[in-house]
Amino acid sequence: MPASELQEVQQPTAPIHLPRTSESETLKKIRHTTSHIMAMAVQKLFPKAQVTIGPWIENGFYYDFDHPEPFSEKDLKAIKKEMIKIINRKLPVIREEVSREEAKQRIEQIKEPYKLEILDDIKTEPITLYHLGEEWWDLCAGPHLENTGELHPKAFDIESVAGAYWRGDATKAQLQRIYGTAWETPEQLAEYKRRKEEALKRDHRKLGKELGLFVFSDLVGPGLPLWTPKGTTIRQLLEEFLKQEQVKRGYQQVVSPHVGRVELFKKSGHWQKYKDDLFPMMGESEEEGFVLKAMNCPFHIQIYQSDLRSYRELPMRLAEFGTVYRYEQSGELGGLTRVRGFTQDDSHLFVTPEQLDEEFMNVVDLTLSVFKTLRLSNFRARLSFRDPELKDKYIGSDEAWDKAQSAIRRAVETLGMEHFEGIGEAAFYGPKLDFIFRDALDREWQLGTVQVDYNLPERFNLEYVAEDGTRKRPVMIHRAPFGSIERLVGILIEEYAGDFPLWLAPVQVRLFPVSDTQRDFAYQVANQMRSLGMRVEVDASGDRLPKMIRNGEKEKIPVMAVIGAKEVESNTLSVRIREAGKESQDLGAITVSEVIERLQAAIGDRTRF
Amino acid sequence: MPASELQEVQQPTAPIHLPRTSESETLKKIRHTTSHIMAMAVQKLFPKAQVTIGPWIENGFYYDFDHPEPFSEKDLKAIKKEMIKIINRKLPVIREEVSREEAKQRIEQIKEPYKLEILDDIKTEPITLYHLGEEWWDLCAGPHLENTGELHPKAFDIESVAGAYWRGDATKAQLQRIYGTAWETPEQLAEYKRRKEEALKRDHRKLGKELGLFVFSDLVGPGLPLWTPKGTTIRQLLEEFLKQEQVKRGYQQVVSPHVGRVELFKKSGHWQKYKDDLFPMMGESEEEGFVLKAMNCPFHIQIYQSDLRSYRELPMRLAEFGTVYRYEQSGELGGLTRVRGFTQDDSHLFVTPEQLDEEFMNVVDLTLSVFKTLRLSNFRARLSFRDPELKDKYIGSDEAWDKAQSAIRRAVETLGMEHFEGIGEAAFYGPKLDFIFRDALDREWQLGTVQVDYNLPERFNLEYVAEDGTRKRPVMIHRAPFGSIERLVGILIEEYAGDFPLWLAPVQVRLFPVSDTQRDFAYQVANQMRSLGMRVEVDASGDRLPKMIRNGEKEKIPVMAVIGAKEVESNTLSVRIREAGKESQDLGAITVSEVIERLQAAIGDRTRF
Repeated sequence: MPASELQEVQQPTAPIHLPRTSESETLKKIRHTTSHIMAMAVQKLFPKAQVTIGPWIENGFYYDFDHPEPFSEKDLKAIKKEMIKIINRKLPVIREEVSREEAKQRIEQIKEPYKLEILDDIKTEPITLYHLGEEWWDLCAGPHLENTGELHPKAFDIESVAGAYWRGDATKAQLQRIYGTAWETPEQLAEYKRRKEEALKRDHRKLGKELGLFVFSDLVGPGLPLWTPKGTTIRQLLEEFLKQEQVKRGYQQVVSPHVGRVELFKKSGHWQKYKDDLFPMMGESEEEGFVLKAMNCPFHIQIYQSDLRSYRELPMRLAEFGTVYRYEQSGELGGLTRVRGFTQDDSHLFVTPEQLDEEFMNVVDLTLSVFKTLRLSNFRARLSFRDPELKDKYIGSDEAWDKAQSAIRRAVETLGMEHFEGIGEAAFYGPKLDFIFRDALDREWQLGTVQVDYNLPERFNLEYVAEDGTRKRPVMIHRAPFGSIERLVGILIEEYAGDFPLWLAPVQVRLFPVSDTQRDFAYQVANQMRSLGMRVEVDASGDRLPKMIRNGEKEKIPVMAVIGAKEVESNTLSVRIREAGKESQDLGAITVSEVIERLQAAIGDRTRF
Repeated sequence: MPASELQEVQQPTAPIHLPRTSESETLKKIRHTTSHIMAMAVQKLFPKAQVTIGPWIENGFYYDFDHPEPFSEKDLKAIKKEMIKIINRKLPVIREEVSREEAKQRIEQIKEPYKLEILDDIKTEPITLYHLGEEWWDLCAGPHLENTGELHPKAFDIESVAGAYWRGDATKAQLQRIYGTAWETPEQLAEYKRRKEEALKRDHRKLGKELGLFVFSDLVGPGLPLWTPKGTTIRQLLEEFLKQEQVKRGYQQVVSPHVGRVELFKKSGHWQKYKDDLFPMMGESEEEGFVLKAMNCPFHIQIYQSDLRSYRELPMRLAEFGTVYRYEQSGELGGLTRVRGFTQDDSHLFVTPEQLDEEFMNVVDLTLSVFKTLRLSNFRARLSFRDPELKDKYIGSDEAWDKAQSAIRRAVETLGMEHFEGIGEAAFYGPKLDFIFRDALDREWQLGTVQVDYNLPERFNLEYVAEDGTRKRPVMIHRAPFGSIERLVGILIEEYAGDFPLWLAPVQVRLFPVSDTQRDFAYQVANQMRSLGMRVEVDASGDRLPKMIRNGEKEKIPVMAVIGAKEVESNTLSVRIREAGKESQDLGAITVSEVIERLQAAIGDRTRF
């Protein structure tokens, strides 16, 4: 598929560039200052309110307040009005440095006990205070704008209020967190709101439910999706697609259990490092205990080690759609992008040191071709390296790290990929190349990952017999182009706005016989399509045509075909096709055989009808 | 495939019928008496030996002895010799009834403390003793032959010795268990030995290792197989095959997690019933705890219940290759037939009461067609009904049980299947139809199962909206034609003696270029085959032809093809094919295109080349 075609999907949806807080000092200042203005406004309107903390976040800021009555919608409006006043008053924002003692006295004067606790957490002196004019101040490290008048009164908004706990601790005081957003210009704010609304429409939790792709159950537990038949179809097609690509590239599938002895994960080092992220141990003692697997690597290593390997067998590329389990905090769970159980499209490549560069390149190439087929074009490569200041957070020698990081850098440069370095983003056992995907709404997601590992081969004492007869140590590459099937499907639902491409759509074709008279013909056509492996349905509801089409649109069926008397007579179908987020388009009457041919071609090539 | 063809595989291997102990009173007597003779012989030769228990078992008997020195091979020979003497002495076997008090005195006379403990376990009076002549007796319920002379001295054998614990309790005294076998005639013994030897050759643990299909790892844990690439190929082909059959029959695939809250299994009743058979709970309390799933049904029920269902959606047939985990005692684990983790080819059908009969029949029909394709022809249906004497072992009303058991009986009778009733073999939630397969060595294995369930729909309060708008309760059918993939593969390895049929073979074709000159041609043919989805290898070892063929035979490649100068010139392959357990057969030169055509046809039809 040509690159130009790929961009069609995305260009119309992201016309204005929105700066990221993490990349814009200006935005940080704007949000810090707006949050202070909000706190000042709240305390002015609600003198009983005590302020606690108020940081900037990716799309705005928040402040946590201790206030006996919950803030109402009306209160939020009043707060916003008060904030506009403060902006218009053009108050200077003044930075002041004081001693710890002085800060303490000031806090005691205004009777704000939370500030005392915050002061205790600040370990350095002097203490910085930020004032808004002469009326209000808070402990803050900054940076801030110099005057409230630098803010545009139409470039910010109050968004919502939610419960929070002091220091995030459910045993402590309950606070109210007010979220707001603030931008450089009203245009940016408008774009942000448009994207937010679009994101809500595309929300995979909402669409997943509407399209009947997956469900959750309180009895099964949070973060453990159950895949319905339609969702399972998508999963399986993704798996089959990757399997086919992998067979072409010499991968071999394996299957390993979902549980293993604690001893296995001690040997791998995962237990020591990730114990708290695992589901609780099964059994009384670590010696006898089992644990749900959170990663597949130690299992694939056991398969590698089940025989003495020769250099002739390398690279050995063991692949598994391995479902792993991680005990995320239930508050952090959301839809498919943050779950407790997920299926990695995992593979471990055991290679000779000489093969590393080429194999790494092959893996990156596979990942790129997968993304292309999935029409995910907007991504950057993050070179996730270790933080040289914190070497003891990682295992393995300096030499091994240097070699591995160089291999990654070389691959990215050779392939000419857009990339950036993420210092401190490495896994504890080795550096990674992560694919950071930016979606139609300009949000970033981590998808595939490729990791070099000199450490597990060391820990498990892996070997192969080299050409000269000596025993040598292989290098491992961990890789998962999708990352996880759950996360990928979640992202695809949002990226496609629920309109899965023909080859992935759970129902590919729906036929609408206009009246009973055309039903037999419809079933005949459906059977013909079905015998060719297509997923086709006949709408036998007896509804009127407009309603049938409406239902088809709602269920986002990519190809719909109306069958009236004329169509039966001329052996044609009046075809309507859908494109992401749009109304279906009428292609007019096409002969049955041509429709089938075009369907087969489009499904086979994973392109459009 | 015609039935006659099926039988070819099995007929030559089981020519003599061996009676089963459980079905032959005579064999029970023979084995009881032989075991007593063995104990008498042991105590004669080793006066320090104390006897404990000595029952008959499926293929013979054993006796446990307390004896300070381990019995050697030489000892066993001497024991056998002594036994022949006892047989030839034609000692009468005399049954005596005594009071508990009298039995106690007799035991004290001969100073056998184990017998005292055994006596304590016998709750009824009188106590029966069995004497061999006047020299030896033991507590025993019988039955026995009337005279040791009724045994044929050449129809028994001592087989092995192994460690055992008194009362199977590792904290108690260690005993030595001597195994023996005994039959009606020397011919039966010879046949038994032949089968045992053949079983050893076909042992799936041995063959599985030799063919590189699966491995175990101490670090992963006992009973948790890891599937190598070759074994995974077989698994996946079996799954794909069943999936295709299921799509034709309107099944829908789903995916559910391997872990769920304890609450889910409490709701289903599995927790109360099977708690001890599960892996230990994860977490501190049952309310918060999770458990590895041991069955898929509660998960599929959650999918059913995720929406209000209409009668139009029924029968809803949810299928999953769901891996489940059961905490079998590690002593009970063996190869693939007894494991702790296994993948059920599970499906749950939600049907209206009116649909039950037809759906049950469809499921049985599917199972029969699966067995036919797998060339498993020798089986009986066991109607596993509840024991009417022990109704409280089962949940659900009398009416529900009667209805379900009738549906099963009707299906089996309508289809004219060989069947028998297994009273007390039902699941606690409903009756089952189990497929009991008899293998080439006349051993019986349970394969597929179909179960009717009125109880889970009740417990979960399942409903559908009937045609008249009222809410009604569906019936569930649980079914698994394979039973489990692990067990099926284990049984297939033994049944096929490692010679997987062409469509299932991990490597289907191997090409042998006689010298370097023919290699290019071989790779060309291999690529052509590979592009058609065949699993083909070129032997590029440079070995001489006989060695290449020997390796191909050892690895049980179904189709091998020799490529010499003549073959290259005439564009032919000299084909050799294998049949279960035999040397490969030379089919002579066949043109490449015909070989490929025949391969495609045989693979597609799942028949022989």
